[in-house]
Amino acid sequence: MAVWARFQTKDGNTSFGTVANGQITEFSGDMFNNPTATGKTFAEADVKLLAPTQPTKILALWNNFKALGEKLGKAAPVHPLFLLKPVSSLAGPNDDIVRPKAYTGKIAYEGELCIVIGKKASNVSVEEAKDYIFGYTCINDVTAGELLNEDPNFAQWTRAKGYDTFSCIGPVIQTELDWASKNVVTMMGDQERQNYPLSDMIFNPYEQVSRISQDMTLNPGDCIAIGTSIGIGSIKDGAVTTVTIDGIGTLSNKLVG
Amino acid sequence: MAVWARFQTKDGNTSFGTVANGQITEFSGDMFNNPTATGKTFAEADVKLLAPTQPTKILALWNNFKALGEKLGKAAPVHPLFLLKPVSSLAGPNDDIVRPKAYTGKIAYEGELCIVIGKKASNVSVEEAKDYIFGYTCINDVTAGELLNEDPNFAQWTRAKGYDTFSCIGPVIQTELDWASKNVVTMMGDQERQNYPLSDMIFNPYEQVSRISQDMTLNPGDCIAIGTSIGIGSIKDGAVTTVTIDGIGTLSNKLVG
Repeated sequence: MAVWARFQTKDGNTSFGTVANGQITEFSGDMFNNPTATGKTFAEADVKLLAPTQPTKILALWNNFKALGEKLGKAAPVHPLFLLKPVSSLAGPNDDIVRPKAYTGKIAYEGELCIVIGKKASNVSVEEAKDYIFGYTCINDVTAGELLNEDPNFAQWTRAKGYDTFSCIGPVIQTELDWASKNVVTMMGDQERQNYPLSDMIFNPYEQVSRISQDMTLNPGDCIAIGTSIGIGSIKDGAVTTVTIDGIGTLSNKLVG
Repeated sequence: MAVWARFQTKDGNTSFGTVANGQITEFSGDMFNNPTATGKTFAEADVKLLAPTQPTKILALWNNFKALGEKLGKAAPVHPLFLLKPVSSLAGPNDDIVRPKAYTGKIAYEGELCIVIGKKASNVSVEEAKDYIFGYTCINDVTAGELLNEDPNFAQWTRAKGYDTFSCIGPVIQTELDWASKNVVTMMGDQERQNYPLSDMIFNPYEQVSRISQDMTLNPGDCIAIGTSIGIGSIKDGAVTTVTIDGIGTLSNKLVG
């Protein structure tokens, strides 16, 4: 078991390492392929945590929780339904979510578990899939909801979810997570807005990685936002949204105008 | 005016440079930021051309030609409608289009012009947009069409268009293209299947770059497949599809089983 983070030091350098008891043990090389300990340590309080991975793609699932599907009256899909979010939308722990200049409408939070891929995955089986998962982090899959159905002929998923800073991930990657026993808790300020069990997933992480690896090659560091459940709502301008999963931690981001 | 290519030499090295009269002048550094001539040249016939850019994202427009919109009875959009194709779907000139193992249905070609971004672009005006375009190439935006509406609640654009090798681009990037005077010609074997004027676009390249830069930051090398027009059809297994735009050249790719 390990907890990995990317971070920036006070002198501006970007690095990564493992986190335990408030201390970061620095590594060099490739986080996903035999990184080497540098021998240096940092107090977690002395660094700024960054988005814990730099993916080549960010997939986001739709309709992957039974409770939300039932509420919306949507049948369970036969294959994971996904869109892509641009990598330019990535943000890290405590980064601001920035309201797009051209959009004055509602901006929604969606607290979710995020799979981080560890090995190049193409056509892997459900049984093999666990070996291709590096670990798990939290994601706030931010959405400019009013754009989604602006055009009657084409659902604008990528546009609504693709703005810079609309994919907040972190704070760390947990390599061993008993996800079936965990809940996703999303708070806006001091109000709990989502608290749903990951056991309610339609496609679990192994099924997702297997199925999606039939559709495209997944690369180390790639992210799969596994979908959200009930309780989606708007973020007030200036409010801090947190996404907490026990074993990973709390991802915190403020919406600024 | 310049024509840029990425290529692999006989000894396996990957490089890039400008192409003229069958000769490549090699450059080093960053294609999009003051690259330096190395002094070496190669005969084009002695190298393998690669996808001419390695984008961080590939956008693909839907409903951007008046003729196709009219045929399908779809109103012109008020903003470019786009999806993202994963960068893992990239293929180069003469690369095979590989039929996905899990898909036995029809696979369609879509011959298109592709914009290649040259400078980081965020909230740029239509007037400024030209300065952010590095050049233009051809794209075959390959689509596993039968997946698109497999789920009644969610159009699977990214899945249908996201398989490895489903974004064929090349053969080169032309930095100066009078696109308004050009046609896109798509052939399957010796049969012409598409031949439509780029002047029929709804959003022209400058409008696209400006509008999309309001939605996300575009980075050097990023691709915008500007949409296709009438004549879309299936590729026969084993058939070679070519996409030709005068001034850029011919992109040729074979569908293999």
